Amino acid sequence: MTNLTLASVRTIVDKALAYAHEKSFKPIGVVVVDARGAVRMTVVEDNTALLRAEIAHGKAYGCVAVGVGGRMLQKFAVERPHFITALGGLTHDRLTPVPGGVLIRDGSGALIGAVGISGDTSDNDELAAVAGIEAAGFKADTGA
Amino acid sequence: MTNLTLASVRTIVDKALAYAHEKSFKPIGVVVVDARGAVRMTVVEDNTALLRAEIAHGKAYGCVAVGVGGRMLQKFAVERPHFITALGGLTHDRLTPVPGGVLIRDGSGALIGAVGISGDTSDNDELAAVAGIEAAGFKADTGA
Amino acid sequence: MTNLTLASVRTIVDKALAYAHEKSFKPIGVVVVDARGAVRMTVVEDNTALLRAEIAHGKAYGCVAVGVGGRMLQKFAVERPHFITALGGLTHDRLTPVPGGVLIRDGSGALIGAVGISGDTSDNDELAAVAGIEAAGFKADTGA
Amino acid sequence: MTNLTLASVRTIVDKALAYAHEKSFKPIGVVVVDARGAVRMTVVEDNTALLRAEIAHGKAYGCVAVGVGGRMLQKFAVERPHFITALGGLTHDRLTPVPGGVLIRDGSGALIGAVGISGDTSDNDELAAVAGIEAAGFKADTGA
Repeated sequence: MTNLTLASVRTIVDKALAYAHEKSFKPIGVVVVDARGAVRMTVVEDNTALLRAEIAHGKAYGCVAVGVGGRMLQKFAVERPHFITALGGLTHDRLTPVPGGVLIRDGSGALIGAVGISGDTSDNDELAAVAGIEAAGFKADTGA
Repeated sequence: MTNLTLASVRTIVDKALAYAHEKSFKPIGVVVVDARGAVRMTVVEDNTALLRAEIAHGKAYGCVAVGVGGRMLQKFAVERPHFITALGGLTHDRLTPVPGGVLIRDGSGALIGAVGISGDTSDNDELAAVAGIEAAGFKADTGA
Repeated sequence: MTNLTLASVRTIVDKALAYAHEKSFKPIGVVVVDARGAVRMTVVEDNTALLRAEIAHGKAYGCVAVGVGGRMLQKFAVERPHFITALGGLTHDRLTPVPGGVLIRDGSGALIGAVGISGDTSDNDELAAVAGIEAAGFKADTGA
Repeated sequence: MTNLTLASVRTIVDKALAYAHEKSFKPIGVVVVDARGAVRMTVVEDNTALLRAEIAHGKAYGCVAVGVGGRMLQKFAVERPHFITALGGLTHDRLTPVPGGVLIRDGSGALIGAVGISGDTSDNDELAAVAGIEAAGFKADTGA
């Protein structure tokens, strides 16, 4: 597995935040987990809701937990809600099955982590996550 | 952030109860949490259901956790039920996504807490919460 | 069972707070539950820790859950820690087995609720709870 | 209450990491929460254990939850283990009661957040947290 270094994680977070600022998104929270589902970095902007970090974490962790992007998790939720309910329990309630959770893949397509962003619309959250991942030289897998 | 003092909290609770009595609502439970999501005051009237305090708490806490009023949480629940299910888990099941949870905002619009009321219809619960918040000189944000 | 009315609960809380102020205790949180373990009233003073309400609740609820005062729960904890660990699980982690949780008994000795106070030393928390219960005309059972 | 801005949080994290590098500590995880107990920033270095973020988070969150530094939580754990077990439950198992959790206080002494660091010895973790807090112009309260 390609190691996801903290240096790369910092680039992802910085570029995602820069994208959000450029597009004048609402203040966001950004979480990056590695292939083990371990948090490597979290940044939560000023004037955000109490649970912003947890919501963003549930997007990132949920994607790595199941191995698919957040858009696919949302599709599961609509088509087979009982499956997503089960996954919620299996992840100990650390699952936010909506867009804005994006897998990080290396050049060979291997899963090396995920980004979760929350604060603006789910679609915009996802755009910022993709921008961060691509700026760091990786491939973004939104689950679309 | 404006501190929500106990003195203000007492005014909110007293005035919400006074409104409910004036309108002959069924007996209610009232919970006020501050911007940290910490309970500052709870009052549950006689002859109420076993879980009245928890239901009211889930309204107040859920609003602060997500940063929106209960009416918006109910909208989320109808439009994206999987998102509200996820929020239920992320709040450790302390979420009641229906009207009657109302954000308390100060003069600048900053979020300083929330009121949750349960016992009568959700619409009436909300009216009592708004009455209490406004009587204390704050702005009520129902999420409408 | 004697009903524990909200009127009595208010007297207990007011007198417990008055006692704490008279003795210059640190700011406290006070929770009263009835014989069902249902919260009837909570008041948390200004400048208290994030979890003050939960700690006080765990004292009150734990006493009613097991039917003994907090001082007895602490004795259990010292003599049979595995039993208190089990009770923690059985109460869904709503147990604070230290002094400051005091049973409310009516004239016939029947259990009608409990008070939990947290904020100063456990011994002082207990004194305030006893003062409130006795001022309302009930008997305080500390588990001593 | 003084707001803990992300700008200040970044300074705390950067300076804590710089201190750890200067002293050749093992790789660490750093978490900063605000007065609400909400995560504002997490950074976990390369080559750290799977649960490094959670351990550091439990130090920071636990301190804010109870309102004391990690060294005091450890004292509680030694003198009254049942109380710390209870706090573990009340925090939904988000409590690491050892040194390395340090309260952030503003000039007036008000609690505005906490830092949790894990990775080297608890004593060294604490030194890095203090270095970060003081470099940002705040007072560090270790609970000693």
